[in-house]
Amino acid sequence: MSPFTGSAAPTADWKHLRVEITDGVATVTLARPEKLNALTFGAYADLRDLLAELSREKTVRALVLAGEGRGFCSGGDVDEIIGATLAMDTAQLLDFNRMTGQVVRAVRECPFPVIAALHGVAAGAGAVLALAADFRVADPTVRFAFLFTRVGLSGGDMGAAYLLPRVVGLGHATRLLMLGDQVRAPEAERIGLISELTDEGGANAAAHRLARRLAEGPALAHAQTKALLTSELDMPLSAAVELDASTQALLMNSEDYAEFHQAFKEKRTPTWQGR
Amino acid sequence: MSPFTGSAAPTADWKHLRVEITDGVATVTLARPEKLNALTFGAYADLRDLLAELSREKTVRALVLAGEGRGFCSGGDVDEIIGATLAMDTAQLLDFNRMTGQVVRAVRECPFPVIAALHGVAAGAGAVLALAADFRVADPTVRFAFLFTRVGLSGGDMGAAYLLPRVVGLGHATRLLMLGDQVRAPEAERIGLISELTDEGGANAAAHRLARRLAEGPALAHAQTKALLTSELDMPLSAAVELDASTQALLMNSEDYAEFHQAFKEKRTPTWQGR
Amino acid sequence: MSPFTGSAAPTADWKHLRVEITDGVATVTLARPEKLNALTFGAYADLRDLLAELSREKTVRALVLAGEGRGFCSGGDVDEIIGATLAMDTAQLLDFNRMTGQVVRAVRECPFPVIAALHGVAAGAGAVLALAADFRVADPTVRFAFLFTRVGLSGGDMGAAYLLPRVVGLGHATRLLMLGDQVRAPEAERIGLISELTDEGGANAAAHRLARRLAEGPALAHAQTKALLTSELDMPLSAAVELDASTQALLMNSEDYAEFHQAFKEKRTPTWQGR
Repeated sequence: MSPFTGSAAPTADWKHLRVEITDGVATVTLARPEKLNALTFGAYADLRDLLAELSREKTVRALVLAGEGRGFCSGGDVDEIIGATLAMDTAQLLDFNRMTGQVVRAVRECPFPVIAALHGVAAGAGAVLALAADFRVADPTVRFAFLFTRVGLSGGDMGAAYLLPRVVGLGHATRLLMLGDQVRAPEAERIGLISELTDEGGANAAAHRLARRLAEGPALAHAQTKALLTSELDMPLSAAVELDASTQALLMNSEDYAEFHQAFKEKRTPTWQGR
Repeated sequence: MSPFTGSAAPTADWKHLRVEITDGVATVTLARPEKLNALTFGAYADLRDLLAELSREKTVRALVLAGEGRGFCSGGDVDEIIGATLAMDTAQLLDFNRMTGQVVRAVRECPFPVIAALHGVAAGAGAVLALAADFRVADPTVRFAFLFTRVGLSGGDMGAAYLLPRVVGLGHATRLLMLGDQVRAPEAERIGLISELTDEGGANAAAHRLARRLAEGPALAHAQTKALLTSELDMPLSAAVELDASTQALLMNSEDYAEFHQAFKEKRTPTWQGR
Repeated sequence: MSPFTGSAAPTADWKHLRVEITDGVATVTLARPEKLNALTFGAYADLRDLLAELSREKTVRALVLAGEGRGFCSGGDVDEIIGATLAMDTAQLLDFNRMTGQVVRAVRECPFPVIAALHGVAAGAGAVLALAADFRVADPTVRFAFLFTRVGLSGGDMGAAYLLPRVVGLGHATRLLMLGDQVRAPEAERIGLISELTDEGGANAAAHRLARRLAEGPALAHAQTKALLTSELDMPLSAAVELDASTQALLMNSEDYAEFHQAFKEKRTPTWQGR
């Protein structure tokens, strides 16, 4: 537990997500399989609050985001979200759309790698959640679809018009966001949208292997790598080089760096502490 | 016609381009086939002014940019442009180069998707026009060449040094802009420079099919998707997420969004109005 | 020699690098083959100072960076660098990490293309040096590894978290920097990390052919192309288009541009002066 923990009690029960934490690895499962894990207001709110809580507590070193059943996530629920937004006033519409954006910012800015374990449909907000993750571990059944224009909305939803060009380039991103067509595994792999392609049914296990590797490794180094990747997208080269220099100077005082050198001299594997 | 139309009369006759508008789709054809559609001062000026006029009028929902004859566009005319610029003073040189850049900005910033229909040569300014488009629909005869250094100029012309790294990555962009070598269809597709590869001779028809689909779809959603893709290249994540939130809040008040929900409930295809 | 040369004497002897300059092409060889060209404090300092000196002198038009022996560069020397940094105070750690970043900035900002000739290992700082180069000419034995997290440090070292997403996209960059796994030639080529793949043992010769072509071409145009590619990564589109316009206006007064037109009229190959 971090010494910078305040009065807020940890959430006892996440009602809209299944959350398990084992040895530094959090597994967050979208668990409404009868609705292809369509997101509700509660699920967005829980994702936002859970990531904030885990970021404060510092007990998690890697997080797997998965979907139960036939697919990862079919996006915002048509009945519960689209129907409801049609009755909202302007302030409520802005509040809802800011909340979904806060989830994406939380995924990009939390101090541990996020691994999306993908199979079947990853559509709409589900596609953007996967896009915001640091790793996309997918099996061959995966079908991405940034289908916002199919419901009359902007393809730039939850940061997608920022993130997708930086992952697959502006040409592919324009096509995917403007048309909302399905992207199957071979194309997703070709354009750089998949980090690791597994055998069918193997995404969850592979995502957990990766999470375990990350959690047992130099976790502070991983956290800083993620922070720099996220922030240097928005920096000029000169500032990025300066940020890298101060980050490495800091980490050269870390226990893990000293341990690496000691292990190297003793010709053994380092025992990482993540600090 | 937009209510925000002022006193300027619509241009009666585009002398340096062939312009046709049918049911919300504009087709702009570079039509100097005997010169491989080499661009003249007049053609640049007409492209700049046409895109500004169409952006004000709001009657166009998609634009196809094509070339007549053996290729798309061989770039600035060596006789009429290079020869003329050698006699210009500094202010004129700046005016000319700003005009060509204004064409690219107009392509990126006009409120409708631009589809380049490509076959044969797309060289110099022709390659950059294609690069600035939202979609590059090309047949297997396409040959891109960013050949500015071949005439002693900078490969960064008309925004190419900004756009190309964001489409194909910095490594490929450096090679293409520095050397000016030809990029044929297989390589162009591999590095993400082509949106859709067609059969030989099929680029124009495919570009029009795509334009028709876009024009008949939720055109306001497409316009906003394009605006966000263009502007979020230049924004930090935090601002992009905020822009997405306010854009979606706005579009959730649009007729097309309500129509999607109604059609979904009635299990029918939506009838898009583009507003 | 540039007229803007001050009182500082040229360095007589680069002790930590092998430097040869022939007809406008500099060849810089990391020449500690018994240590796989592991970098020492002196090698970093010499790279920083050499690039600054060559940038002032203006006699070099292209630079090849190569490694002698079994590989390109295994990165910072574990004994001489990691061991030494463990004994440094905060100011010294910052000085060291700023120096390595200055090398990368110098590679990106020097007024001539830099070609990395790659074979075997390109690891750690060696991988970032290659990444910072304008061209990566590699043979099939090349093995990139951004292995900073393997020693407990941030994957964002020397600008890598800025550069790598802009070369291969954010997804691949996250995987490579976070995990530090080896990237062999087929993957490197697929994701855009290699500019030219040669036959085994052919990287040095191919890099020199490219350097010779660049040095004998319109070198001022190449230098400006590089400057725009580097600076337009950090600019909005509007500013990039304006920079392109003023750069082309400037180069349209250059001797090489006039020479191109003259040669074109006379149906002969231009004789480039690089000015």
